[in-house]
Amino acid sequence: MHSETICSIATPNGTGAIAIIRISGEKSFEAAKKISFSKKLSKALEGHLNRGLEFVQIKDENDIIDECLLAWFRSPHSYTGEDSVEIYCHGSYYIQKTILELLLKHDIRLAKAGEFTMRAFANGKMDLLQAEAVADIIASNTQAAHNVAMNQMRGGFSSDLQKLRTQLIDFSALIELELDFSEEDIEFADRTQMTNVLKNIKSELLKLKESFSLGNVIKNGIPVAIVGKPNVGKSTLLNALLNEERAIVSNIPGTTRDALEDVVIMNGISFRFIDTAGLRKTDDTIENLGIDITYKKIEQADIVLYIVDINKTSFDEISEELSDFRQNISNPDKKFIVIANKIDLLNQTPSHFKDFVNIETIFMSAKRKENIQELKDILVNSAKMDINSENTVLTNIRHFESLQKAEQAIENIFEAFKNKIPTDLIAIDVKDCLYHIGSITGEVTSNDVLDAIFSRFCIGK
Amino acid sequence: MHSETICSIATPNGTGAIAIIRISGEKSFEAAKKISFSKKLSKALEGHLNRGLEFVQIKDENDIIDECLLAWFRSPHSYTGEDSVEIYCHGSYYIQKTILELLLKHDIRLAKAGEFTMRAFANGKMDLLQAEAVADIIASNTQAAHNVAMNQMRGGFSSDLQKLRTQLIDFSALIELELDFSEEDIEFADRTQMTNVLKNIKSELLKLKESFSLGNVIKNGIPVAIVGKPNVGKSTLLNALLNEERAIVSNIPGTTRDALEDVVIMNGISFRFIDTAGLRKTDDTIENLGIDITYKKIEQADIVLYIVDINKTSFDEISEELSDFRQNISNPDKKFIVIANKIDLLNQTPSHFKDFVNIETIFMSAKRKENIQELKDILVNSAKMDINSENTVLTNIRHFESLQKAEQAIENIFEAFKNKIPTDLIAIDVKDCLYHIGSITGEVTSNDVLDAIFSRFCIGK
Repeated sequence: MHSETICSIATPNGTGAIAIIRISGEKSFEAAKKISFSKKLSKALEGHLNRGLEFVQIKDENDIIDECLLAWFRSPHSYTGEDSVEIYCHGSYYIQKTILELLLKHDIRLAKAGEFTMRAFANGKMDLLQAEAVADIIASNTQAAHNVAMNQMRGGFSSDLQKLRTQLIDFSALIELELDFSEEDIEFADRTQMTNVLKNIKSELLKLKESFSLGNVIKNGIPVAIVGKPNVGKSTLLNALLNEERAIVSNIPGTTRDALEDVVIMNGISFRFIDTAGLRKTDDTIENLGIDITYKKIEQADIVLYIVDINKTSFDEISEELSDFRQNISNPDKKFIVIANKIDLLNQTPSHFKDFVNIETIFMSAKRKENIQELKDILVNSAKMDINSENTVLTNIRHFESLQKAEQAIENIFEAFKNKIPTDLIAIDVKDCLYHIGSITGEVTSNDVLDAIFSRFCIGK
Repeated sequence: MHSETICSIATPNGTGAIAIIRISGEKSFEAAKKISFSKKLSKALEGHLNRGLEFVQIKDENDIIDECLLAWFRSPHSYTGEDSVEIYCHGSYYIQKTILELLLKHDIRLAKAGEFTMRAFANGKMDLLQAEAVADIIASNTQAAHNVAMNQMRGGFSSDLQKLRTQLIDFSALIELELDFSEEDIEFADRTQMTNVLKNIKSELLKLKESFSLGNVIKNGIPVAIVGKPNVGKSTLLNALLNEERAIVSNIPGTTRDALEDVVIMNGISFRFIDTAGLRKTDDTIENLGIDITYKKIEQADIVLYIVDINKTSFDEISEELSDFRQNISNPDKKFIVIANKIDLLNQTPSHFKDFVNIETIFMSAKRKENIQELKDILVNSAKMDINSENTVLTNIRHFESLQKAEQAIENIFEAFKNKIPTDLIAIDVKDCLYHIGSITGEVTSNDVLDAIFSRFCIGK
């Protein structure tokens, strides 16, 4: 199927002690021999073992490029299922580049993003769900995201879908049974059993679908809106939270940072802080437009940090401000935390503040980082996510949409039952449902879908 | 000797398809068993093979951290000479971090920079020269730098020094022979043989020492000064050269870029471009100070690009300018190239310009990148460095200084011969010379020297 042999650097971009160059395809072993001139390796490759590790010199004619370890994997005992070779070379820019160039000379081409995993999928080493999980695993910055992806890679989600599939096929058998008798024009009066099977399938589908909102939070971080009038210390608070964790944040590649959002990982949970424009009453149309956007952002947030400058606001004003603010928010279940900021400028802590506004309040100084740990504890506790690698959690919009279509097909069957639609039409909905579930694991798929999926992989995977 | 077991990420920093975690020391195998719970691995480790490769699950109790390949190397058949393990895991931030944390739990500590190679040296797997070459190989961006470091790692330099050592020991034997007879108070009148051996040693030492200037150029790039009056297009030229090669430059980690110097690799040769302050006659003390600095920088350069704006300068002026400039340069062997810039603003090319100034001239437009390839060709051709991996080239100031001290000891012996100094005093100089040569390969060394050497390594090597 895949006649071309591919190669790629598989380690992170840059210079390091060791780099890995990966080769997969029919010509892998031949290339390994040609660039290493190692009799021991040649002998091993011609032997009967499924894999091995040799110390070799990588040479271009007489030029020694490196002395390094080389691992080989005989088809189908490799990641891709094809003959594969991994070279563990010194991680210099020059060596990485030169070995790749050498392989290109030997009729091997550079792999596209995700091409190794795509071949693993094509060769039946994993289904599409597992293949997608590989990219998720590599992108995981937190334990929750990692566990969800690991469950998916190990086939947890696939086996959930397999169960659904089995139930659907059972259901299909019952439908076929009806069809066999359909010429006799008898309709089964009692569809209790069928309805029960269907209800079961629907409830499983819903459970999976519902996990998507959690999955979204795990993947993109818990959205926390930072709200308040201008100059109450919103940016200072964000910086205080970011600074504390800068070492962690800067270590995570791929952390998206635009002007408005910052991701901070605290206790292994990622929080997506949304800095919002200042809120104030105004008649200016354009400014009101900005405030509308702010409210939309707040609607998306799970947690709202409402900051006030405790020195510049009377308790009455704060109370009114908050009540105004909450009237504009549609979801009353959102967690509100009032940040009574700038206590460094106060002479004494106003202890009755909390009772007054009847909301969880933290008295703090964002500037001096006073009580910032208290805020962090509250955030972490309100976001407890007990995800272990046994749970299936949807994180992918493609899966969500397919499940949604599968659910629609189930709804159609319920409707058909109600409206006494002919059984052969119901059979079409069953097939439809199976199709959408099959599209998740890749049993049915198109090249466009595959291209879209694998293009988000990194090179070398 | 080294009771502690160490671990480290060995691949470049960041996220990628695969990362390598390296473990070395007595507890490596035990730790590998503890974090993988693999019966197959345990059996393999208890077997008789020197190395092996297993597919394992990395687990923290019941949490699966990753499914990956694990290679093991039995002492002394490893890089360090100790029992060693390499884990080839998925290259996510979370997995890399979590496996390291798991190892720390099992009483393994993080390796210091260069500690794996330091152990390889301590366990006699390589001498100090070879160990130092490992860091040089990783830092190599060009073929020349790579070949020099590869020769050193493969023991080329060590064997040159071994030859010197043998000659010195032969010489020492002749000295001892004299000493045996010294009680009889006879001095050997004919020291021709000894002098010849000594001359040989000295010439070898000088050859090695002389290679240092080439080594320096290979390691740090060929210094090229860009000189000219203000606004003739110096920065535009530099940017044109940089832009053309940006893809390459940005791929090379560790490329030093300060305000004044930029390294560009062209045809595998690195050029260090030194942008200098504009030159003009002035009475201002401070400005003259700046011009002094400029001239010092020009003295360091091997090649000088002298730029003029061809539209604003008459041929007479250019001629005078150049003659002024060259009077201020002490080394007349420097390569001069005149860049007649801004030809895009000219109506016709002044063809007699070249004869007039009697210097290699390139008519170009830095802005439009016209004729920039011509300049690049001239630079590359004037810098042909035919370094293959058989040549020993000194790139390290430590080696240079030790050779200088060894040479001084040889000079002392010549002096002693001349002044008829007693043979037992000459024997001290011979020992001194042997000591300095031994300090290069690490036969004699101090902890301070070792610390200084290995601290410049990257983590994981």
